[in-house]
Amino acid sequence: MKFLSINRFLPVFLAGCILIFLIRSAHSQNKPSDFVKPLIGTNGEGNTYPGAVAPFGMIQLSPDTEDNLWETASGYEYSDSSIIAFSLTHFSGTGIPDLGDIRFMPQIGKPWFVQGPKSNPDSGYRSRYAHTDEEASTGYYSVKLKDNGVRVEATAANRAGMFRFTFPASDSASILVDLSKNLRWNVIWSNIRVVNDSTITGFHMVNGWAKERYVFFTAVFSKPFRDYVIMSDGKKVFYNGYRFRSSSECAGKNIQFLANYTTSGNEQVLVRVGISSVSAENSGKNLQEEIRGWNFEQIRLNTRKKWDAELGKVEIEGTQDEKETFYTALYHAFLTPVLFQDVDGSYRGLDQNIRQAKGFTNYAIFSLWDTYRATHPLFCLLQPKRNADMINSMLAHYDQSVDHLLPVWSLCGNETWCMIGYHAVPVIVDAYLKGISGFDAERAYSAIKTTAMNPDYDNVKTYATLGWVPFDKENESVSKTLEYAHDDFCIAQMAKALGKNADYEYFLKRSMAYKNLFDKSTMLMRGRDSKGNWRTPFKTHEYVDGGDFTEATSWQYSWYVPQDIKGLIDLQGGNKSFCVKLDSLFTFNDNSSQNVDDIQGRLGEYWHGNEPSHHIIFLYDFAGQPWKTQELVHKIIRSQYGNKPNSLSGNDDCGQMSSWYLFNAMGFYPVCPGTNYYAIGSPVIPKATIHLAGGKDFIMKAENLSDKNVYIQKVMLNGKACDKPYFMYDELKNGGELVFTMGPKPNKKWGGNVDFSELNLVKP
Amino acid sequence: MKFLSINRFLPVFLAGCILIFLIRSAHSQNKPSDFVKPLIGTNGEGNTYPGAVAPFGMIQLSPDTEDNLWETASGYEYSDSSIIAFSLTHFSGTGIPDLGDIRFMPQIGKPWFVQGPKSNPDSGYRSRYAHTDEEASTGYYSVKLKDNGVRVEATAANRAGMFRFTFPASDSASILVDLSKNLRWNVIWSNIRVVNDSTITGFHMVNGWAKERYVFFTAVFSKPFRDYVIMSDGKKVFYNGYRFRSSSECAGKNIQFLANYTTSGNEQVLVRVGISSVSAENSGKNLQEEIRGWNFEQIRLNTRKKWDAELGKVEIEGTQDEKETFYTALYHAFLTPVLFQDVDGSYRGLDQNIRQAKGFTNYAIFSLWDTYRATHPLFCLLQPKRNADMINSMLAHYDQSVDHLLPVWSLCGNETWCMIGYHAVPVIVDAYLKGISGFDAERAYSAIKTTAMNPDYDNVKTYATLGWVPFDKENESVSKTLEYAHDDFCIAQMAKALGKNADYEYFLKRSMAYKNLFDKSTMLMRGRDSKGNWRTPFKTHEYVDGGDFTEATSWQYSWYVPQDIKGLIDLQGGNKSFCVKLDSLFTFNDNSSQNVDDIQGRLGEYWHGNEPSHHIIFLYDFAGQPWKTQELVHKIIRSQYGNKPNSLSGNDDCGQMSSWYLFNAMGFYPVCPGTNYYAIGSPVIPKATIHLAGGKDFIMKAENLSDKNVYIQKVMLNGKACDKPYFMYDELKNGGELVFTMGPKPNKKWGGNVDFSELNLVKP
Repeated sequence: MKFLSINRFLPVFLAGCILIFLIRSAHSQNKPSDFVKPLIGTNGEGNTYPGAVAPFGMIQLSPDTEDNLWETASGYEYSDSSIIAFSLTHFSGTGIPDLGDIRFMPQIGKPWFVQGPKSNPDSGYRSRYAHTDEEASTGYYSVKLKDNGVRVEATAANRAGMFRFTFPASDSASILVDLSKNLRWNVIWSNIRVVNDSTITGFHMVNGWAKERYVFFTAVFSKPFRDYVIMSDGKKVFYNGYRFRSSSECAGKNIQFLANYTTSGNEQVLVRVGISSVSAENSGKNLQEEIRGWNFEQIRLNTRKKWDAELGKVEIEGTQDEKETFYTALYHAFLTPVLFQDVDGSYRGLDQNIRQAKGFTNYAIFSLWDTYRATHPLFCLLQPKRNADMINSMLAHYDQSVDHLLPVWSLCGNETWCMIGYHAVPVIVDAYLKGISGFDAERAYSAIKTTAMNPDYDNVKTYATLGWVPFDKENESVSKTLEYAHDDFCIAQMAKALGKNADYEYFLKRSMAYKNLFDKSTMLMRGRDSKGNWRTPFKTHEYVDGGDFTEATSWQYSWYVPQDIKGLIDLQGGNKSFCVKLDSLFTFNDNSSQNVDDIQGRLGEYWHGNEPSHHIIFLYDFAGQPWKTQELVHKIIRSQYGNKPNSLSGNDDCGQMSSWYLFNAMGFYPVCPGTNYYAIGSPVIPKATIHLAGGKDFIMKAENLSDKNVYIQKVMLNGKACDKPYFMYDELKNGGELVFTMGPKPNKKWGGNVDFSELNLVKP
Repeated sequence: MKFLSINRFLPVFLAGCILIFLIRSAHSQNKPSDFVKPLIGTNGEGNTYPGAVAPFGMIQLSPDTEDNLWETASGYEYSDSSIIAFSLTHFSGTGIPDLGDIRFMPQIGKPWFVQGPKSNPDSGYRSRYAHTDEEASTGYYSVKLKDNGVRVEATAANRAGMFRFTFPASDSASILVDLSKNLRWNVIWSNIRVVNDSTITGFHMVNGWAKERYVFFTAVFSKPFRDYVIMSDGKKVFYNGYRFRSSSECAGKNIQFLANYTTSGNEQVLVRVGISSVSAENSGKNLQEEIRGWNFEQIRLNTRKKWDAELGKVEIEGTQDEKETFYTALYHAFLTPVLFQDVDGSYRGLDQNIRQAKGFTNYAIFSLWDTYRATHPLFCLLQPKRNADMINSMLAHYDQSVDHLLPVWSLCGNETWCMIGYHAVPVIVDAYLKGISGFDAERAYSAIKTTAMNPDYDNVKTYATLGWVPFDKENESVSKTLEYAHDDFCIAQMAKALGKNADYEYFLKRSMAYKNLFDKSTMLMRGRDSKGNWRTPFKTHEYVDGGDFTEATSWQYSWYVPQDIKGLIDLQGGNKSFCVKLDSLFTFNDNSSQNVDDIQGRLGEYWHGNEPSHHIIFLYDFAGQPWKTQELVHKIIRSQYGNKPNSLSGNDDCGQMSSWYLFNAMGFYPVCPGTNYYAIGSPVIPKATIHLAGGKDFIMKAENLSDKNVYIQKVMLNGKACDKPYFMYDELKNGGELVFTMGPKPNKKWGGNVDFSELNLVKP
């Protein structure tokens, strides 16, 4: 290994200056990256992170301000005034903390080996910072640490990233690498090796949300260590003359490494770091393949270009605020699932064996209860190849599953079983029905069917025989019944398409299970036990953790029949009474669940901050009152999205909140994943051009759009008047034009034409 | 996976009967295996184990009776009356416990998930047993568990083994697999997966003597589980209806698996199990490659044949007792180092990365402070190919060492730094000087030199500049100085042979460092501090843990100059005074160190039970009194070796105690490893034929040998009279004949001819 001397840095420095100039020039051409503000969603419930990451990147270098609170699942809360350290991995928008692996923190003076509490940053390596000294953009994060004056910058490639620490002059500068922590959970074991005068490798294994998760890393420092120390359980690792002990390696539960330096004023020490789920060696291979030299600006520019290419798949017109909101939402939608394989194609499988991704790229972190709704449908439009690879990744997970189940909420070689349902199904079926190629349909169907017939998982078997999930056997029984029914509808669609008629009939029957839980006495979905008795007493507006509903009330879940909206409307007595009831959802107020997690973004009892509500607004479309859909879309977007750190009303949930916005900004929404139609909402931006994968463009225009002109007057689709409140994927997939004419008042004559026979069900 | 029905077992049963017949027939032909009694050394300090193992096998299925006491490092102590369980890995003869990974234990009735103490076997899965119900032979172990009547049998291939459990009729039979324990140390993490109705896989990671050691396994049961349970922290792993949890997999610190069965009388349930350091998948590959069906007897026979082939490399004449002693010693010498790579050539390296053994077979467990003395020199004769592979394994270790050190005491991908010196050096040099091919001499020399010049390890650097290891900087400073000096002598030999004259001079000078610690006032080796001051007070017979001597006294270590025996004799004032002093070593008695570990097998202050004494007897040869060597060899062999469980006077130390015996039984000993001569002792068996690797035989005959006729009258070597008390490896390597004529009294005229100029030093 060679090291550049200061003199040899000069050409690098000049090249850097030129790159900065180029970046700034690029700025003037208004690339999508110019509008990305990663800090959106970092204040409050959004749970996004501001750090440096490539599109769907495996590594996310980002500051952590909080490592314990459930509400700060990404590690960064905008309202915190101090930063603990900068770690290598982060969730975007989950409701549960984890990751935050392998911390790096520059220090000046006597080094700390404890982080210190928020209440007293001076008692640990934690440092104060100010948002005025902070910058976040695509592939780049920068902040000045107030307490020691060190500027920290980070950029990221796919599996490797780079820190740039700008130190003041000091003979006690240091960089701490802390392996002993992650966000909230327990580091079970770790090791570290000082490979040479500027390279360390190691790993830690975390028992957390994921029960057994391995992160290996290799970090190369641009400047050889003046000296270094490994700490184990807070004690220096050294040979005391009794029995030899290497001071260059250690294994244990609580390990830290400190590189000491004497620095001149404004001296930059860079650290490039690669990660892997497979081995320390592979983390080095990933690093070597992706970041070889010390050109921070080049990495930053490369990643920015990648982002511009990804984000540029949709070009929009709109105000600066709208563009910031839109492109940051798109950015957030393009973070998860993350790449989860090394440059040699290997990755850690669900069975903890090292697997080789053959013929596909492996992805991890599937927050499927969230993302089946709008994120994967968005990927069908904008990331069809990646979506196919995600499906292949889910099928590999299935192959490795000892329970023969597709992923539920999978996390880097682990299944967390978080949330409910078998929502890999709508993801796969949605892609299949939309003709996304790149995965084996028969293999996928086999996995789907086996999953839906699992004898052990969440009383699916009881549901299949009884017709509902009984609350005396299973918690969240109503939500499970309703979501299973939708999943089963999806299976029926795919079975039909594959000519499996018996399966079609079987799963179509199961998809009607929602009717079994419709209680005519309350006109709501209600729990039933295994003998058929209704849940009594039945508190229709009550949120009960572990009750019959998943993070919701009966009033919210009673609308969850996306697969048979007509059937649901009929149960409610037809369009009129259906809409009256629906109206009251948006006006009912009850303070009983005021402080419940996951219930944010309230509009009456419609809680936009969590997923069970996400499809509800579009039901008006199918009950003859599409103007209410239009009105509410605008209302929600104006009140619950935006370009501020606190603009996300709920957990972004790996992009689902953002995906909801993205569809609706363009005027349509996949109300029933696993079908090939979109409900028409009401656009909030004047124009969007979707560059489809096949090379064609689909253009949305909203004429006369304004804050007041939120109601559709007419719709032209591919040159023809569209009087239906929905349109087919087939009308979009080959490119075309969707032109809305907007006005200040509802056009109640528009959109009443609903032909349920062309929705949902694949024709026999 | 297919399972044999009971009916389909019939041909297997018949084949088994035939095999048993064949085995018994083989017995009648007196194969070496007939004389192997694995129980030798299991009572007391020997620390061997009785279980099933192939030659140098990676897996050792053996009962554990004790999992905590330092003195029961192999897990089995003959005097214990109850067995905890049967685990898959075991040390042979070490002084420190570890391994004992992955326990299997059959139970009847309500299953226990705790082992229970020796004092009350009824309070755990532990069971009483009797030696009358126990059988141990090459590749086979069997015992009947008194408490539940289950017979347990085990056999082993290289990386996989098989248990055969013969149950009584019971509706509550079970087989426990306990991942939560090993011998003495801490299981940090484990996981388990029930792959199908008769297969489990998993691993555990142990922080023990080896700081981070992984054992993966796959176990296939011959009979599908009636049902099973995984326990974690003593609680059943199951789904309670709240958030799904698989009952078929678990990860944690304290995991057990129980397979439940209903058995008929004498029903046999077999379990075949493979292990790996790499992955669960690889443990399955190892199993699949080595043991496919359920033919226990076939595996047993195959391994017995392997043993006969290895043990048959030496054919001896002698009594039954002598043959049992000899072949069991050879068996013990052929257990360690163990094979440490999977069938695909992969293994876990010292850096915990998965490595591929290219062009060699990888071995692990190098107890070098012990085995450089006689075990590896024995391998030069009997296992030259394996010895070369062991050297290649040590070089791979070196390549992976963050400290750039050859192994000191390496343990399955870990360095323990146990004991002192850099004794990979004499192993490599000994093999090199003896012309053992199969490793790259220049590469080996580079590793040797870098190791000997290490700036951090055990004050080698201070030693190199000061001329001794100062006791104020380093413990065991005298032993280290003396052993470094011998190691350096070896380096000098190899340097000379490779034409590295400057290195030769440098290391030859270092090899004379022993002189710096010879204290003329006491005529003993004595500690000096970094200023040159002698250790004061100096208690010449005192054993001090962590003092100036390694598990020994000054009186013992003062003889440790194998590389310059003439120099040592001169320091003592010539042959006469040297022998007078040496005589007193064998007669001095002091009770002060009576209960010290590692000091066993006393003959005065000569403690044969530990290695620092092993070369001393042969010094008489070079000081004109070879008959004392002859007398003492017999005395020690008759008193401290034999064919009983308690026959080993000290830890077998991975074969070193046994190797000492093996050489001496044949009449010679490698008094100075890293040279090409053997000191002549006095044979204890009448004839031995060594089948050398090249196809030639070297035959030793001892004419007129009896219990009284222990003195050499004359020696004929390759047809010529040999009047020197040593001979050269070159005189042996192409085959030949060494004929002793023995008598009841010393022939003091024999053996006085010592030409030091032909010993040790490679001529310039």
